Amino acid sequence: MVQFRLVSLVEESRMPSPMLRSHVLGAWHTADDDGKAVHDAVTGEEIARVSSSGVDFAAALDYGRRTGGPALRELTFHQRAALLKALGLHIREQRERLYAVSARTGATLGDSKFDVDGGMGVLLSYASKAKRELPNDTVYVDGPVEPLGKGGTFLGQHVCVSLRGVAVQINAFNFPVWGPLEKFAPAFLAGVPTIVKPATPTAFLTAELIEVIVESGILPAGALQFVAGGLGDTFDHLTGQDLVSFTGSASTAQLLRTHSALVRNAVRFNAEADSLNLSALGPDAVPGTPEFDLFVKALVAEMTVKAGQKCTAIRRAFVPSGLVEAVVEAATARLAKTVVGNPAAEGVRMGALASLDQRDEVRRSVGALTGAGRIVYGDPEKVDVLDADPQRGAFLSPILLVGDPDRAEPHEVEAFGPVATVMAYDTTDQLVEYAARGQGSLAGSVVTADTAFARDVVLGVAPWHGRLLILNDRDAKESTGHGSPLPMLVHGGPGRAGGGEEMGGIRGVLHHMQRTAVQADPDTLAAVTGRWVAGAQRHVDDVHPFRKNLAQLRPGDTVVAGPRRVTQEDVEHFAEFTGDTFYAHMDAEAAAANPLFGERVAHGYLVVSLAAGLFVDPDPGPVLANFGVDSLRFLSPVKFGDELTVTLTCKQITPRESADYGEVRWDADVTRQDGESVAKYDVLTLVAKPAG
Amino acid sequence: MVQFRLVSLVEESRMPSPMLRSHVLGAWHTADDDGKAVHDAVTGEEIARVSSSGVDFAAALDYGRRTGGPALRELTFHQRAALLKALGLHIREQRERLYAVSARTGATLGDSKFDVDGGMGVLLSYASKAKRELPNDTVYVDGPVEPLGKGGTFLGQHVCVSLRGVAVQINAFNFPVWGPLEKFAPAFLAGVPTIVKPATPTAFLTAELIEVIVESGILPAGALQFVAGGLGDTFDHLTGQDLVSFTGSASTAQLLRTHSALVRNAVRFNAEADSLNLSALGPDAVPGTPEFDLFVKALVAEMTVKAGQKCTAIRRAFVPSGLVEAVVEAATARLAKTVVGNPAAEGVRMGALASLDQRDEVRRSVGALTGAGRIVYGDPEKVDVLDADPQRGAFLSPILLVGDPDRAEPHEVEAFGPVATVMAYDTTDQLVEYAARGQGSLAGSVVTADTAFARDVVLGVAPWHGRLLILNDRDAKESTGHGSPLPMLVHGGPGRAGGGEEMGGIRGVLHHMQRTAVQADPDTLAAVTGRWVAGAQRHVDDVHPFRKNLAQLRPGDTVVAGPRRVTQEDVEHFAEFTGDTFYAHMDAEAAAANPLFGERVAHGYLVVSLAAGLFVDPDPGPVLANFGVDSLRFLSPVKFGDELTVTLTCKQITPRESADYGEVRWDADVTRQDGESVAKYDVLTLVAKPAG
Repeated sequence: MVQFRLVSLVEESRMPSPMLRSHVLGAWHTADDDGKAVHDAVTGEEIARVSSSGVDFAAALDYGRRTGGPALRELTFHQRAALLKALGLHIREQRERLYAVSARTGATLGDSKFDVDGGMGVLLSYASKAKRELPNDTVYVDGPVEPLGKGGTFLGQHVCVSLRGVAVQINAFNFPVWGPLEKFAPAFLAGVPTIVKPATPTAFLTAELIEVIVESGILPAGALQFVAGGLGDTFDHLTGQDLVSFTGSASTAQLLRTHSALVRNAVRFNAEADSLNLSALGPDAVPGTPEFDLFVKALVAEMTVKAGQKCTAIRRAFVPSGLVEAVVEAATARLAKTVVGNPAAEGVRMGALASLDQRDEVRRSVGALTGAGRIVYGDPEKVDVLDADPQRGAFLSPILLVGDPDRAEPHEVEAFGPVATVMAYDTTDQLVEYAARGQGSLAGSVVTADTAFARDVVLGVAPWHGRLLILNDRDAKESTGHGSPLPMLVHGGPGRAGGGEEMGGIRGVLHHMQRTAVQADPDTLAAVTGRWVAGAQRHVDDVHPFRKNLAQLRPGDTVVAGPRRVTQEDVEHFAEFTGDTFYAHMDAEAAAANPLFGERVAHGYLVVSLAAGLFVDPDPGPVLANFGVDSLRFLSPVKFGDELTVTLTCKQITPRESADYGEVRWDADVTRQDGESVAKYDVLTLVAKPAG
Repeated sequence: MVQFRLVSLVEESRMPSPMLRSHVLGAWHTADDDGKAVHDAVTGEEIARVSSSGVDFAAALDYGRRTGGPALRELTFHQRAALLKALGLHIREQRERLYAVSARTGATLGDSKFDVDGGMGVLLSYASKAKRELPNDTVYVDGPVEPLGKGGTFLGQHVCVSLRGVAVQINAFNFPVWGPLEKFAPAFLAGVPTIVKPATPTAFLTAELIEVIVESGILPAGALQFVAGGLGDTFDHLTGQDLVSFTGSASTAQLLRTHSALVRNAVRFNAEADSLNLSALGPDAVPGTPEFDLFVKALVAEMTVKAGQKCTAIRRAFVPSGLVEAVVEAATARLAKTVVGNPAAEGVRMGALASLDQRDEVRRSVGALTGAGRIVYGDPEKVDVLDADPQRGAFLSPILLVGDPDRAEPHEVEAFGPVATVMAYDTTDQLVEYAARGQGSLAGSVVTADTAFARDVVLGVAPWHGRLLILNDRDAKESTGHGSPLPMLVHGGPGRAGGGEEMGGIRGVLHHMQRTAVQADPDTLAAVTGRWVAGAQRHVDDVHPFRKNLAQLRPGDTVVAGPRRVTQEDVEHFAEFTGDTFYAHMDAEAAAANPLFGERVAHGYLVVSLAAGLFVDPDPGPVLANFGVDSLRFLSPVKFGDELTVTLTCKQITPRESADYGEVRWDADVTRQDGESVAKYDVLTLVAKPAG
């Protein structure tokens, strides 16, 4: 198979431009027509042609479902996480190659890093989160056991299992690397194969990414397919097990959302669409405060990074009436220092838009905005450009407007480029009202050191926002900025922003899984989830479970130990030894007046300490350490003379993929002589795998 | 205002039938046209007319948003829960009145209880769940704090806030009481007002329910409105802050889902639609086993309860090939004993369908099913009826078919009445494949005592199911049955079933709220959430926080206590006293070989016991008890000679609405002399409100 490299084509620009290849059904596919030409955003030169002609879309879906899905579902969450990590590290090694191609989208090196490093960061972050928060299993147990009857013989438990379809992602042109990867990571962890469809203008960069991924050989066959060009009749073949994730314009989102097969089959559809994100300056943040400078700096950064082509960029800057002039002055001064031009040239801070078409579109939007405001910086028709041809490259000056917040345009017209509108507000209520007029945004920010103002604004505008940043001198140093979605936080917004929710840590994984409520007796539930649950059979044998290594131990393995009598002397001794002389343990009269006890009782910490003394097997063995306790509840007081018995049962076993031990969660139930539980909790231990 | 009662109309049936009234904008509204007549399902008599003519739908939405929403958002989750409980108890008091009206829908008393008691059960269950699982606050803090920087100055936290719109619910005819209430409860708890639209054929029963609710005066104005009849132009006025919950046919769901305003504004749309629910008999459950009888009994119950008009009823009964004959024989014998007729008559086990139209519809579906199977019990055109006119009442015989599972019809044609098809399967894989051909179901059941078979089937068919019941001799006594959705479990299914998810405990509440990722410094995050977070300011003053009552205590109130030196003698003494002589504490050589410690270390339980000794204020005071510990992690070993200091900080305060105390969660951080944390955990206490 001939592997051509786009980077090398940069040097051989006289050749007829090559056709980007799709990668479907485990092989490269070259379209059998002429396709659509795409151009270098800086030089205007034709780079490649894009077409998916000849791709059998139904077969690609089928390949994902029959080859990719089963291969992924063979792996546990932790094993998938390990592949994701390996892929992230592989992309990191190849990043220079991606930066080089990225420059042709008009991106500066900083912009490229935002896209490429951001993308591999999502893979690494998800890999690490999966290892910490998901079980080393294929089934996700969601939430606690729900008792459905008083006798404990009928239980409910939500479980999440992999959907059996394919995640079809349709990406925007502005993040050709991050876009596919942020959608891919949670789908992959969920055990669901992906088909990537890039936006045509920057498809050549996504194609390079796919080449890097395919070359790595890291992913199982069918886990990731790539369609350069249109998706053909893909949507006609979608079922209720498939998913669609779309990033792009609201109008396209609406079109896709109403496709008959999607509607008929209730296909999960996630959209990130238009968003007129706001940033608000607090009344406390007057000139001279660090917050005033942070606000201006963030505003200009959001206008110029990626030439403002970010779904999350600030479009509406709300400023207390008295500060509008100062903000405009400071922002203008800063914008004046922003050198526009060839991203490869020294000193250039802002590159080109992704295409000439895109520039036309932004100019039209600026035209609409000037109906409700005036331009205070920049000229949509003119820009000084360093080391590039301002006509052939898609260059545009940053444009700052001062707008009328009582008009519709500034809240509704999204100029998807280096454009923002400053508007005045007077009260917090008015600010909240203006925010709502955006009708739903991906991200907002409030720049203030005043926590009460921040609380009022955040709780006031949150219903219209997927993410809100509060920026001030206390967090600025570590802040990732207004415009950066993070894998552990949800990305998406209500209403105009598409109503979607991507990433958000494990939430994004579960979006690709079916949540099912299972109702069963304890033994069956234990079999389904692979975890012991209260009421399920316990196994007591001659071997103390602390003597079993990770391969020998089974959920349900149990030790019952006791009884241990608790005397007044024990309690007084413990009180003296630890210093915990709380009156309920020491003072009969005061304890009698306590509404919960009625008499002196033993310390809760004494009860769990004695329980450990009962269940521990002291000699060296596979149990390496007790690293914690969860959900300890003292259910009934222990009084002098009570006798304690503890039942410790292996509940869940989580081997670590890259260590010679794993985590074992034990159910501890401490009971009194009358059989009543006095304390219940989970004991967490590390247990060794078998030697060798 | 004239309050007419439907029940009394039953006795005065010669009167021209009354117009059902809507309740909108805080008042009763009677339509200004003739409306549509609805009939008694048993006698065919006209009961009422239904029309919403004259309702100003935009004004009703506005009233919900401007009056209902703000009133609800003034209340905390616990206060809303208290109203929900009061409403549930009020409906319970009035239930006989509802049963009486319910009989006219064709329901037996048992059917009516399923609907009415089920509905009030949802209110009570949600009220109780909210008090246990939601904070006594208006903001829901979702998931843990996410550290976003290494320095701890930049944190992420998801919060959920009430959407600012209205929840519009469109109900099916089969559960005129449960349907509205199961949708209302989570919306109400979320602080979102509701507009109820019943299905026309049984709207008279929902109207009676609304009358009961309005009479109670329990709900704040605008929290619940009722539209008897069509929703007019309601959908045109929906925004991204509103929600629609629909239960009904897949075709209507598709129509609503593609309404332009819904699509444009990404309105949250939840649908429960068609569902060809399965029940599978395990190979172990041969005649003579309790499971065989449970299967047959459940099949017949699901066919006849509510005359099979349940979205969750069994439509497809999968039986091992060899057992088809036995199942048919047993089910037929049982069906033969099912007396059909006037629900009011003694001995009647199955009433009428909801309307004659509905009966025609079911007959058509049975016709389609006979193309792929044969009827083994019942005649769609003929039924013996007790104490009723089989022509005027919407009576239908139960119909059992034996079908060909390789044909499409049994998997796709939902006969929404007392109809089910028995089909044979041979292997588990085949069963899973047949299940998938239903293309998404609300509920399924597996009747088996074999836990391994149950696991294989559950994990195999879960991707197509919202709920799965495993029924056997162990859980049958407490089982709520195949067809009963429960408030603590999700109700909904993928694909054909509409892709929705209702209830599911607090999940259903959060569906009505916006999840927003907040990024902030610790102090601002604490202000936003009302909880202390690590890194936020601590307040230390002269008064020990254990001396402050619930009204005096503030998040951030802190006591720092220590140091306490831990000696070898302490550890040995504790080991001897508790019996916990684990080698890592007692045996220098063995401890040195442990990969985590390297030398002898103190017991974790000793560390937390000493910490309590340090932070406790011993004298009687507002702190009544320590009722638990959460998320205890031992972060670093404590070695002999180490000195411990504990910092205890008030983190979250949850007053109880109906007790003179509340819950206080404290952050405990035990540090060593070098400042490193050795243990972190939450301490849970009960703290008294101020006396009087």
